[in-house]
Amino acid sequence: MVRTLQIQTGHQGMHEITPLVGEAVHGARVREGLCTLFVQHTSASLTIQENADPSARHDLEGWLNRLVDPSDPRFTHTAEGPDDMPSHIKAALTSTSLSIPIVDGRLALGTWQGIYLWEHRTSPHTRRVVVHVG
Amino acid sequence: MVRTLQIQTGHQGMHEITPLVGEAVHGARVREGLCTLFVQHTSASLTIQENADPSARHDLEGWLNRLVDPSDPRFTHTAEGPDDMPSHIKAALTSTSLSIPIVDGRLALGTWQGIYLWEHRTSPHTRRVVVHVG
Amino acid sequence: MVRTLQIQTGHQGMHEITPLVGEAVHGARVREGLCTLFVQHTSASLTIQENADPSARHDLEGWLNRLVDPSDPRFTHTAEGPDDMPSHIKAALTSTSLSIPIVDGRLALGTWQGIYLWEHRTSPHTRRVVVHVG
Repeated sequence: MVRTLQIQTGHQGMHEITPLVGEAVHGARVREGLCTLFVQHTSASLTIQENADPSARHDLEGWLNRLVDPSDPRFTHTAEGPDDMPSHIKAALTSTSLSIPIVDGRLALGTWQGIYLWEHRTSPHTRRVVVHVG
Repeated sequence: MVRTLQIQTGHQGMHEITPLVGEAVHGARVREGLCTLFVQHTSASLTIQENADPSARHDLEGWLNRLVDPSDPRFTHTAEGPDDMPSHIKAALTSTSLSIPIVDGRLALGTWQGIYLWEHRTSPHTRRVVVHVG
Repeated sequence: MVRTLQIQTGHQGMHEITPLVGEAVHGARVREGLCTLFVQHTSASLTIQENADPSARHDLEGWLNRLVDPSDPRFTHTAEGPDDMPSHIKAALTSTSLSIPIVDGRLALGTWQGIYLWEHRTSPHTRRVVVHVG
């Protein structure tokens, strides 16, 4: 089964999509299998991070924002603004695809794991994540 | 087939799990297919690295330890100690899931490739890696 | 179906392999499924990046080359030259495997996405990418 999720991202940062992915898995009625996510963009990405304490995601975002300096004068890909090139770099350092086993009809996530679409642009976007369940 | 590996990590660093994954693949009796690994934690991760010369892994770990400064005063997620937030960052920069084709009943790894569970915390942990073979 | 692509990399940088992967998917005659790529090396990697404007890839490469200093005096894995250890680090920060859904017999890539084999060594190499279609 393949389904495409559309996610409205209002701002830069991690947007949790665990419930949306869980629904897609439930709809596929697969007891044991594999769920693969693929983001169809190069300035947004996927990550699995702690879903309990938001300070972990806050610090992760802050750290990555400091690692990739948007005012780097050596960037040439700047037509769409100073957040464009850092977005491509952050996407390359995180994940375009992720695979999660399905056990007993549910995603085999660890206790503290959530699935996040990571918007790297500062303005709102509509992002597409393709979900394959097999 | 889905199987969960439990790995005792005595210390920070890369723990080779190639033989454990190879056994799971052998047990699944699949001639051609795909083996997917998923780590159920956000402060440990997966990586495929050189299994011949340990100096490559030593240098990789040292480099990543210098990239992510545990004494960064901007970290707020510090309740579990100074290695907690760097662990989440290192996990986000490496892999939560990995997929390796199976050919002739064996993992199609390159000559110098080993599969590693990368423990990012400094204290020992029991880590769970879910193996899906399809 | 499993097929192995051999790619001659003449120099450091991203080499587009989208057409080669598309041919493998076409040959597998799968309408809906999953294509997984696996690179059999630890000093080359896979990435999905913008295929329209080459300046995005140029800036991404430049940024990563600045992040990982080949003259770092703390590197010990230096027998093969100053580009050896940075290659392992860059491979660890990007992807060894990637999975892309197949919809209507074609890779479900976004409009601006291309698949790249990223050669991290400076000299030419023959690289092997295993393609699994299921």
